[in-house]
This record gives sequence, structure tokens and C-alpha cells, in this order.
Amino acid sequence: MKPCIIQTILTLGIAFANAVAPVFADEVGDSVRSYRQSRATDILQSFREFVSIPNVSADGANIGRNAIWIRDELKKRGVASKIWDLPGANPVVFGELRSPAATRTVVFYAHFDGQPVDESQWLHAPFTPTLMNADESAGGEAIAWPESGEGFEIPPTDEWRMYGRGTSDDRAAVMAMLTAMDALQANGLSPQVNIKFLFDGEEEIGSPNLRRYLESHRQELDADLWLFCDGPVHQTRKPQLVFGVRGIVQFDLTVYGANRPLHSGHYGNWAPNPALNLAKLLASMKDSRGEILIDGFYESIEPLGGRELDAISKLPNVDDGLLSELGLAERENPTRDYYQSLMFPSLNIRGLQSATVGKTARNIVPNEASATLDIRLVKGNEPGEMLKLVRNHLQRQGYHIVYSDPSDELRRKYPKLVKFQSGGGTPAERTPLGHPLVQDVITAADLASDEELLLVPTLGGTLPISVITDRMAVPVVIVPIANHDNNQHAPNENIRLGNLWYGVDVMARLFLMK
Amino acid sequence: MKPCIIQTILTLGIAFANAVAPVFADEVGDSVRSYRQSRATDILQSFREFVSIPNVSADGANIGRNAIWIRDELKKRGVASKIWDLPGANPVVFGELRSPAATRTVVFYAHFDGQPVDESQWLHAPFTPTLMNADESAGGEAIAWPESGEGFEIPPTDEWRMYGRGTSDDRAAVMAMLTAMDALQANGLSPQVNIKFLFDGEEEIGSPNLRRYLESHRQELDADLWLFCDGPVHQTRKPQLVFGVRGIVQFDLTVYGANRPLHSGHYGNWAPNPALNLAKLLASMKDSRGEILIDGFYESIEPLGGRELDAISKLPNVDDGLLSELGLAERENPTRDYYQSLMFPSLNIRGLQSATVGKTARNIVPNEASATLDIRLVKGNEPGEMLKLVRNHLQRQGYHIVYSDPSDELRRKYPKLVKFQSGGGTPAERTPLGHPLVQDVITAADLASDEELLLVPTLGGTLPISVITDRMAVPVVIVPIANHDNNQHAPNENIRLGNLWYGVDVMARLFLMK
Repeated sequence: MKPCIIQTILTLGIAFANAVAPVFADEVGDSVRSYRQSRATDILQSFREFVSIPNVSADGANIGRNAIWIRDELKKRGVASKIWDLPGANPVVFGELRSPAATRTVVFYAHFDGQPVDESQWLHAPFTPTLMNADESAGGEAIAWPESGEGFEIPPTDEWRMYGRGTSDDRAAVMAMLTAMDALQANGLSPQVNIKFLFDGEEEIGSPNLRRYLESHRQELDADLWLFCDGPVHQTRKPQLVFGVRGIVQFDLTVYGANRPLHSGHYGNWAPNPALNLAKLLASMKDSRGEILIDGFYESIEPLGGRELDAISKLPNVDDGLLSELGLAERENPTRDYYQSLMFPSLNIRGLQSATVGKTARNIVPNEASATLDIRLVKGNEPGEMLKLVRNHLQRQGYHIVYSDPSDELRRKYPKLVKFQSGGGTPAERTPLGHPLVQDVITAADLASDEELLLVPTLGGTLPISVITDRMAVPVVIVPIANHDNNQHAPNENIRLGNLWYGVDVMARLFLMK
Repeated sequence: MKPCIIQTILTLGIAFANAVAPVFADEVGDSVRSYRQSRATDILQSFREFVSIPNVSADGANIGRNAIWIRDELKKRGVASKIWDLPGANPVVFGELRSPAATRTVVFYAHFDGQPVDESQWLHAPFTPTLMNADESAGGEAIAWPESGEGFEIPPTDEWRMYGRGTSDDRAAVMAMLTAMDALQANGLSPQVNIKFLFDGEEEIGSPNLRRYLESHRQELDADLWLFCDGPVHQTRKPQLVFGVRGIVQFDLTVYGANRPLHSGHYGNWAPNPALNLAKLLASMKDSRGEILIDGFYESIEPLGGRELDAISKLPNVDDGLLSELGLAERENPTRDYYQSLMFPSLNIRGLQSATVGKTARNIVPNEASATLDIRLVKGNEPGEMLKLVRNHLQRQGYHIVYSDPSDELRRKYPKLVKFQSGGGTPAERTPLGHPLVQDVITAADLASDEELLLVPTLGGTLPISVITDRMAVPVVIVPIANHDNNQHAPNENIRLGNLWYGVDVMARLFLMK
């Protein structure tokens, strides 16, 4: 390991481990591993071809080329596959591989679209896949692609990375599935479940049409379990499975002073200041230890089961490393560590605005002040109910609530007036660890690596999983494969080869689930 | 009175009175009045010529033309006058009129520069003076200027207005002084004090060179009293004298979260939110009744004398009208009316900023949050001392204060970190009502109108009076003449003729002070 890499990791405060470098003890593991080792050049060349196709969600023509590439690759492997379209939507790719002995059907979901790219920020062009022998920021050097039919001069290591948009998020998952099928076929192994593939072309813009696709193809997508193959493994590089995500709901508050900005000399001290009133209102919502003071805010939380509590207790400590990396002295709530904090609904101020500050500040009493907040929801929290608790809190603080800009008449009537505006919200999702099929997923994934498999009951972010659970009424498990330092959504996105290989191994194991 | 005018006034909630229409009982009053009535056309034509010269402070060439015009008009009236220059400064006009019998010297200060103009917002071009028979917003109609040597078709009334930049602020004061001299000369009356004039060309950009002018011409400007002839009369249209102004000091606060914005899903609830911490900090500074909670904030207030308390008790109630006009249900501090509130130092939030709100809000935990505040000071408050009280308060709230952006090391060390930045500040000024010369000013001004003369111990705003009191060590009295609804600093600035005439009458009386 190079010194510069060590330094990067120490800075992050996270213990480094070549954790997901897979070491199989059994025959299946050996055969998959030797397949992907011996065929590494071909696999990487094929992935290079895939990543060369631009995949920005808004680029309809190239999104179509991605879909065709995937459909054709599936077909080569004997998967009945087709491209589905809907008016005004990017296409999705569907594939089906039936297994004669199967009693259950599993949908493998991934997406092939990517975030927009600002080429000027990339060291290498985002759609010119580039191999390096280490992370760019750790002094990695470019590796030349071999001539057609030849191998690499030195064998690829797990620390090599391929750079390009979508190498990790989320074309790596598609590539891992294709390669896992090849590995099984080359070794005469057959999937033990019915496999369905669904590859989304709009995930990075919020999967606005996924619900319509699920409704239009309910029959074809009928299944017992969905695997949502996206996201990074743990920052310790240990493999993980994730069983839930927080939901979200967002709202805006505006409080009012006079009907125009006033001269702070003539009116300061006399006219109510909306920036102060907003500050007092926000301050009333949380105490100095991060406990939310909105009545009932914690009441609807669905308690965690024994398996979930056990899983959380086994997760590695990430707090010290994060605090140091982020320049923080302490957590908002010192009594809860990172993973515990995700088990509670959050109340977060996204932004504040009242007139202007600093050099552009004027000598005024502002006429209004606004804040935008979000609540990350946990299982049990209904978005609408949580917003109602917020509104109740506003009223308990003496505020009269309006839903559009108030008239002067209303302003004269109510000393405390707040405009409340909110969106619809997405509930949290969490698949119970005790679900029998979920236990089978855990067993399969655990076989894919010698490293301890981490079980994360809930991710902090929000994914459109409720679209699936609502529409399809099946459990969902998230299967991440990418390295956590993949520059997801950012310039210089990359996949660490060790993580791509882990992806192949874990997909093979999941295909062989019974 | 037209119905639309009545309606406007009812909306403002302020009792209308033709208050400053001067009615003299004595001979001096009669003679000044009959002069300005009989010569109204000439006076307005001369004022028209003056206002036709653009006077935006930044327009050096035209500022020079204003100075020459004033100097020449002073000379015509026998005033020894000259233009003073300083490198990098707009010129000022100085004039001196000695009176053989005088024992005292009074400086009459006014300014001839004006605020910038956005012509597209003006109903008439700002430097094409336009007469109307009532306020534009009350349906006034334009009055044609008469041919040279002729009079108006109908005699001007006090409700007529002249529109143009600087008609009120502050060329009206210059015109009133020139006309008052004419009226005295026409009636064989002579000033009883030595008069000095100082006309500033940079007041609207904060008189940045006034101090240098005072220092360069200390001898020539030696005097017993300064009259600061600027600003509007009371909003009831009653005449007023003002004896002080609040001072000001301003500061910026920035509090910190993580060293970069964080995803609100992954970190909301875990990472401290600087917008919340800023809200809590600001909320700690004032209670819900507007009382400032910063220790010692009210301690240095210089108590008001009996004359000041008496004067305040006689000021008309303006609160109800202002609340209604401004769309407010109540004052910030319900226990103090408008004039009482000006006797206390204020703490005002000028603006708040943390990330963005509304449609541009992102799903982040912001990395910092800022506020800009000002303190309006009253007599007794030292700007630096008041800032120190604020810093003490920050520390009592657990904050470590920095004066530039903190390093990651400092951020890791202090959970509560605030950047404090401030300017120098201007102290409040207040001339005691009991000062003998001040009593003579009151007596003189009282003779200029039948209406009750209001004595206002302190204005809410800040004027560069401390430059004068510091440098010249003399009392200052503010003598306003403009109508309060003159659109000062705004498009469609105007002077109500009744106020211009009041200006002539009050200047004549002040020239005749002994």
C-alpha cells in the first residue's frame, strides 16, 4: 500500500481493510472466482464498451443505446428480454430467466442512467472509461487498455479502478449480473430461482415513471422478492445488505413583519422583526441536545425488532472518523451514535433566508423570513401526520397558519402569522430481518465474502422503494456493491475492481438461492 | 379637499392638518409672508432652475454646477461665499454674513446632493421640475409653468407640490434660506446673528469628507450653534425640531456545522445544524416582549431630563396609524409607544442566510448560517462597549468567538463556534433641551407657525452629527421643513409648497434670533 493511500485513510479516520476481496472456501465460490480472474480482460473490455455509451438521464438517444446494449447482452445469455416504453418516459429493460426447479421468483432491479456530467471537472472524459492502478486522489496511474485479444501486461488487482460516469452508480450492478450469469454457465451451474431483471433508465431523476411501468406490467413483474441492487458497501469496505430507507417530507415556513422592509433606525425596536420571530419558532422545535420538541414526533416510530437491534449493535463505529473528517466537535445528539440516529425521524433546516447578510445587508427591519425544512421519516411515520404535528406545534407557539401570502387585513389581525407550504412526501420502508426469504438472501450474500456481512436496518437517505412495496406488495432488500469512495453523482466517478468482483460473486450466490 | 386625498389619509391612519400653513400674528411674520406670497412665481421659477441641475452625488460635473449656482445666489444676496474643494471629494459651498450687532454665530448646514435616480420609475423626469396641484398618488394634475414674466393662472395653494430629485431632500432647505434672506432684505430687516452657511455635496453617500472639511476650515466654521437643516416635519404635518439621533453599530455572526454541506438523509439528526444553532443564538437575545436579554444592554443609557420627558409626552400618537399602514397587529414591545421605543438601544436582525430556501432549497444540512444585525444606539451607549456586551453574550451561550473563518482543527475543538465581525459605529447625539441657545431656537421656530411646535428629543435614524459635535464642540439642532410624504430617496420625490413656505418662514425667524 502506498503511503499516500495510508494518509488518505487516516484522514478519513476509517480503518482500511481489503474486506470485499472475495475468498471462497467452497467449490461454487472457487469456480466463479476462477472464471472472473481468467476472463478479467474480456469482462473489463465489455464493461468499457458499456460505460462508453453516455447515460445522462436527459439524453434520450443515448439512454436508448444503453437499453439496447443491455437487452442484447441479456439475449446472448439466453434471457428473454425486451425494452419497454411508455409515452414521455425513458425506456426500461425487462428480462426473464425461468428455472425449471424454481419455486420462487426474484426481481433484480438496477438502473443504467447516470447523473449529469461537467466534463471540465473530470480528469478523464466521463464516457472514455479509464483504468488506473489506484484511486486518482491517492496518486493512481493510468493503465493502458490491451490490444484486442491480448491481456493486461500485469494482472489487475482489486485496488485498480475504472473511471467513468455510471461505473459504480449503477452500471456496475448490471455488469456484475451479466458476468455472474457467464460464470455460472461456464461452470455448468443453473439459477435455482426464477430471475426477472428490471433496469431503470430514470433513477437519477427520481424514477418518475416507475410506478406507471409497474402498473402496466404487473403480471410480468410478479415476484416474491425484489433485490434493489444499488449503492455503496460500508465505508470500512465490508459488504452489507440494507433493509430499509428513511422516508422524507419537506415544508416551507414564512413569517411576516411589516408589509415592506422598514428603516432600522426609524423602526428598529418598534416593528416586530420576522427574522427574530422565525429564529424563535425554529429554536422552539429542538432542544440543545438535539431532541425534537414537537409534541408526538417520536410516538409513531415502529419499534425495532430483536434482530434489528442486534444488527445495529454489530455495525462498526463510524462516528469518530466522520466527526474528524467533517470538522465537527460533536454530534447533534450526543446520546445517539450514527446508526442509532437513523432510527429516529429527523427535523432538519435546509436553509434560512431573510433579506440579505454581510456586505449586501441593508439597514432594514426585514418584512419576512423563510425557512425550508425536511423531516426524514422512519418506519411508522406517516408523512401527512408528521406535517400535522408540525402545524400543531406552530399553533401552540401562537401562530395563525396560512397557506398563501396573507392580506394586510390578516396581518393586522394576527401578531403571529406563518405561511406553511409542503409537498407530498415519501414514507420510510423497512423489510423485517426475520422474513424467511430475507434470511435466504442473508445466507447467500454471506457466502460471497469471507468478510463479516453487515446488516443495516435503515439507510439515512430515501429511495423510491415504496413504489415497489406499495405496488408489488413484496419485501425489498438493497444489495450494494460499489466502493463507498466512488464519487457517486460527482466528477471522477469510479468503481474499485475488488468491488466489481464482489458484485459478480454476490450476484452468482443470489442466482443460486433456492 | 378631494375624496381621494381623504381616503389616502384615512388609509394612513394619520389625522390630516394643514398644520404648517404659516399664519403670523406679528409684523415680521406678516412681512415675510406677504413677500413670499407676492413673489411666489419668481421663487418657484428660481427653485425650478436649481432643481433642473442634476445632483446625484456621484455625478461630479453636475455637483460642481450645483455648487456654482448656490455660490452665485449667495453672492447676489451679499453673502461672502466660496466653493471649497478637497482632493477626492465633492465640493462644499461656504458662505458668511456678518451682523454688526451679533454676539453669536450660527452655522446653517444643508446639502445639495441627492440620491441616484432610476428614471423609469419617475412619472416626470427627475430633473425636469414639475408642479402639480396635489400629490400624484392622490390624483394631482400638472400645472403649466407660466411664460417668463407672467404669473400662474390660479394662485398656488399650500397643497401644490413640486416634483424632482432634491426638491425636498435637501435643496428645499437651501431655497428656503435664500428666499428668507430676500424677504428680510425686502422689508429692511437684518439678521441678528452672524450667519455661516455650509452646503454639503456628499451627504447622500454618508459625508465621507465632511470631517476633513471641518478640520481644514476650523477657523472659518467657528460658531456657537449648528442648525442641521434636513429631514421631514412630523407626519401630522406639525412643525418640529429634533435634538438628537440614534447612533449605530453593525455586526455579522456566522455559526458553523460540518466543513461542507451534508446530505440530509445520511446526516440529518446526526450532524449539528448551523441554521438551528443560529436560530437558538438569536432567539436567546430577545424575549417574546421585545426586551433585549443581553446582559447590561440597557445599563449605559443616559437618563432623559425633565424637559425631554415632557416633550415626549406631548408628541402625537403615531402608533395606531403606523400599525395599520404597515399591516402590523402589534409593536415588538407592546409596553413602549413609538417615541418611547426610540429612547432605548435596539437590536435588529437585518438579514439571515443559510443555504437556500423554497424552490432552490436542497436536501442538505447546511455547513454555515449567518446573520447581520445592527444596534441603534442612544445617548450613553458606546459602540465598542455595546459590541463587547454582545460578545459576552455569545460566550455565555457557550460560543467560542473567532474573527475569521475557522480551521478544521478549531471546528473539531469547539462544538459552538461563531465568527464575529463588526464595523466601527457612530455614537448617538442629543443636544439638551435646556441649553440656552437651544431655547432661543425653540422660541424662534415657534414663531414661524401657529401650529404647535413639536420637540423631538431623538430621531430613530442616524445622521453624521457626531462629526460636527466631535470636531466643533457645539450643540446641534435639526430643523426639518419637508413634508413627511416627500418620497425621499425614492422616485417621485417632491416638496409640498406649504412646507417650502414654512421653510422660508422658519429660516427668517432663525436669522432674526439674537
